[in-house]
Amino acid sequence: MSFVDGTELGQDGILALAQRALELRAGSKAHRSDGARVAGVFLNPSLRTKTSLEAACGAVGAQPLMIMPGKDAWALELEDKVMDGDKAEHIREAAAVLSEFADLLAVRAFAKLESAEEDRADPVVSAFDRYSSVPVINLESALWHPLQGLADTATWVNHLGPDLRGKRITLTWAPHPKALPAAVPNQVLLSAALQGMDVTLAHPEGFDLDPQIVERAAAMASSGGGSVRTSQNQREAMAGAEVVVAKSWSGFAGYGRRDEEAVQRAEHRDWTVTSDKLPKGGGFMHCLPVRRGVVVAPEVLDGPQSWVVEEAGNRLWTAIALLERMLETS
Amino acid sequence: MSFVDGTELGQDGILALAQRALELRAGSKAHRSDGARVAGVFLNPSLRTKTSLEAACGAVGAQPLMIMPGKDAWALELEDKVMDGDKAEHIREAAAVLSEFADLLAVRAFAKLESAEEDRADPVVSAFDRYSSVPVINLESALWHPLQGLADTATWVNHLGPDLRGKRITLTWAPHPKALPAAVPNQVLLSAALQGMDVTLAHPEGFDLDPQIVERAAAMASSGGGSVRTSQNQREAMAGAEVVVAKSWSGFAGYGRRDEEAVQRAEHRDWTVTSDKLPKGGGFMHCLPVRRGVVVAPEVLDGPQSWVVEEAGNRLWTAIALLERMLETS
Amino acid sequence: MSFVDGTELGQDGILALAQRALELRAGSKAHRSDGARVAGVFLNPSLRTKTSLEAACGAVGAQPLMIMPGKDAWALELEDKVMDGDKAEHIREAAAVLSEFADLLAVRAFAKLESAEEDRADPVVSAFDRYSSVPVINLESALWHPLQGLADTATWVNHLGPDLRGKRITLTWAPHPKALPAAVPNQVLLSAALQGMDVTLAHPEGFDLDPQIVERAAAMASSGGGSVRTSQNQREAMAGAEVVVAKSWSGFAGYGRRDEEAVQRAEHRDWTVTSDKLPKGGGFMHCLPVRRGVVVAPEVLDGPQSWVVEEAGNRLWTAIALLERMLETS
Repeated sequence: MSFVDGTELGQDGILALAQRALELRAGSKAHRSDGARVAGVFLNPSLRTKTSLEAACGAVGAQPLMIMPGKDAWALELEDKVMDGDKAEHIREAAAVLSEFADLLAVRAFAKLESAEEDRADPVVSAFDRYSSVPVINLESALWHPLQGLADTATWVNHLGPDLRGKRITLTWAPHPKALPAAVPNQVLLSAALQGMDVTLAHPEGFDLDPQIVERAAAMASSGGGSVRTSQNQREAMAGAEVVVAKSWSGFAGYGRRDEEAVQRAEHRDWTVTSDKLPKGGGFMHCLPVRRGVVVAPEVLDGPQSWVVEEAGNRLWTAIALLERMLETS
Repeated sequence: MSFVDGTELGQDGILALAQRALELRAGSKAHRSDGARVAGVFLNPSLRTKTSLEAACGAVGAQPLMIMPGKDAWALELEDKVMDGDKAEHIREAAAVLSEFADLLAVRAFAKLESAEEDRADPVVSAFDRYSSVPVINLESALWHPLQGLADTATWVNHLGPDLRGKRITLTWAPHPKALPAAVPNQVLLSAALQGMDVTLAHPEGFDLDPQIVERAAAMASSGGGSVRTSQNQREAMAGAEVVVAKSWSGFAGYGRRDEEAVQRAEHRDWTVTSDKLPKGGGFMHCLPVRRGVVVAPEVLDGPQSWVVEEAGNRLWTAIALLERMLETS
Repeated sequence: MSFVDGTELGQDGILALAQRALELRAGSKAHRSDGARVAGVFLNPSLRTKTSLEAACGAVGAQPLMIMPGKDAWALELEDKVMDGDKAEHIREAAAVLSEFADLLAVRAFAKLESAEEDRADPVVSAFDRYSSVPVINLESALWHPLQGLADTATWVNHLGPDLRGKRITLTWAPHPKALPAAVPNQVLLSAALQGMDVTLAHPEGFDLDPQIVERAAAMASSGGGSVRTSQNQREAMAGAEVVVAKSWSGFAGYGRRDEEAVQRAEHRDWTVTSDKLPKGGGFMHCLPVRRGVVVAPEVLDGPQSWVVEEAGNRLWTAIALLERMLETS
């Protein structure tokens, strides 16, 4: 079993891992898989994901093998073509060889934001999953960030209890100096829907997520006792939420229209999450790294309703819980 | 004892390591040298070599200390000169200091392909070996790639049996978009000669290997019951081979004549290894990374006669076998 | 307790660690803190510091988590500002999150040499110390390099005995092709003063260290039975010294005057440490990397009075001693 969008484990499986993560955080000893190896292929930079994966490997007795193609390793070719250009190694061989060296293969590869069709195919993680003979863990792809979704779920469970059905969560778009991929908001949507939460997705006009993904999340939510609704009024969307998740992303309709998108983005600087918008008692979450003063006001980020450091800390405990499970069964 | 071209261990010693590697692959437990440390200095990128070395360290309980001078560490000066230029650290101090920190020192430094005399001196690995007070492992130098040769030997033993004398191997030049160093073909030649194989070296006119190295291999082969012959007819050279190893390289005569060499290289696109040239039942090997459709046709690379993934996998088991031996005796 | 300039442990504490390091070097087994984690954040390149920290982690059973912001991790913002520029992550979150993942946080961040006021505030290490919830180890900051000071102290103790009061040490400026930060000379001064040594600080006119730091060291030395004096005559300053430490640095008065400083620096090429200046029987030390033939003549560096390789080797044993202490009490 690979772990590409987190739904592979189902609502119960994710909930079990989130609860196991909270046990580990409380001091439970990790199950060991001494001598196992986990290869991590990073096509993009990372602080939390790389560090927490390495630390989680250490906690279960596995050895992390970290590879940065194009930096310390060869640049990878993804397409089926005659390789007479710059890229030295095809993903077929890279995946097959790393499968010889490791028990699990973890891959990070962001969206390019050039072509909606290309990013929708999630080409790098899909290719590693196809050509690898060991299970693949997605460390953030063009579409998904399931380890973030798992850490978020653990954070929700910690604050709102294990039965998340009907809990009110708002995922709000936020301003940012750059156009960003939608893997994190897609994942928040999907992870919340998987647990049957009542999700409000708030964004300005033009900053919609991929309608196929919103539809899939809505179906998943409603079958689990929850719902997904969309709003273009941030203040209203946040009112009454038990937890607010902020994130900037590039609108799905904006693919290939970067200049126009930048102008539109600049028009919505008032979507910064400020304390006057934050509902009383509601938690504030963001996957980090976060632009202070742009995405969120410092008084929210550093304030008592901010769960961001706990959320990032849960990246470690959830990664341990996931490795325990995947190495036991691999 | 350092491990610079692989002949330091002799024909028997290499065969013993190859057989030990196959035992490890079959499930034998690695001998531990807990608390040992192996420093790896990478002046060039690497996927298989770095990852397999790190994994092999883990398997024997040693700690890998990986250094990329010019990236995460200081750029190294090799020459005896007044250091008033860009390079911050002399290889004398780097080697001496790493010898204080580690039990073994492993080094990767490719040929520059500028001067035949410079590359023939194998300056980086030689300097590390001279200034280090611990044994040095060559992770691919200007001239040699002994860990590749060891993995290849293990692959030959697995398919052809431990007595490799008189087994027919063809090492064929192949097209490539770039001029490449000859460390790998030099090593295949030497490793096959060491085991007394019958080696056919095939390449177009102008793509000869260093005649000193070919002569040395021929003498070594004949003293072990084998032979080395050269051919400029690829199809004929491959006919009847039990194993074909493909690799592109820059002709020895082409040093310092890059433009001319590029033209010549482009004239031999018909040296791509295709299924119609591959002898029936013969294995296909390549050290990877490989240019699909240029060096070798996809149907060969992905076909049933391809041993490339096994060959790369053997990088791990042979590295463990070598570390077992070098740490026991260091 | 953080370890920012090394004085946090006091004269006795540093001496105890230096002696423990020499025991470890002689074969004493390191105390284990299995399962601990040490995050290392490197904003500048490193050979000895990174490698010795990783090796020291291994020796005590801790896992090193190495991060290079701007290379494999996000570029860090230090200032309190609206983050609408290039930097993706604020040091507040980076420090808080790494504190969730690790038991100790080690940070390397050189002086920028642009503004004396900025470097005097030691902004990066100070910020990590402020925002981290675990102890911080300084791996060389704008002002200090306490692990180097500790290794130097161990080297002094090894050659001169544990009672360093009144021992004669000369810290001499040396030529260099580039303007360099003063963290190392500041630290040598402070570490020698802490042990009550008689320190002579020698440099050409214009290459003074920060007067606040010289004053602090002088007060510390005199309260411990030692002294600090300054000289502009290198030969005289070195005569009779039991140990000479060479290092180039940019004069404190030279901040923001790079071109002028380069001219002045070039005028003092005769400050190269040569064998005729080295006092009979006195040791020669340098933190490395060192410019051969510029800072010091090869005959000194490679000669019998050179302690540089031992000094660098002591980086490992002192790092183990420090981790033993900090992980026991963290």
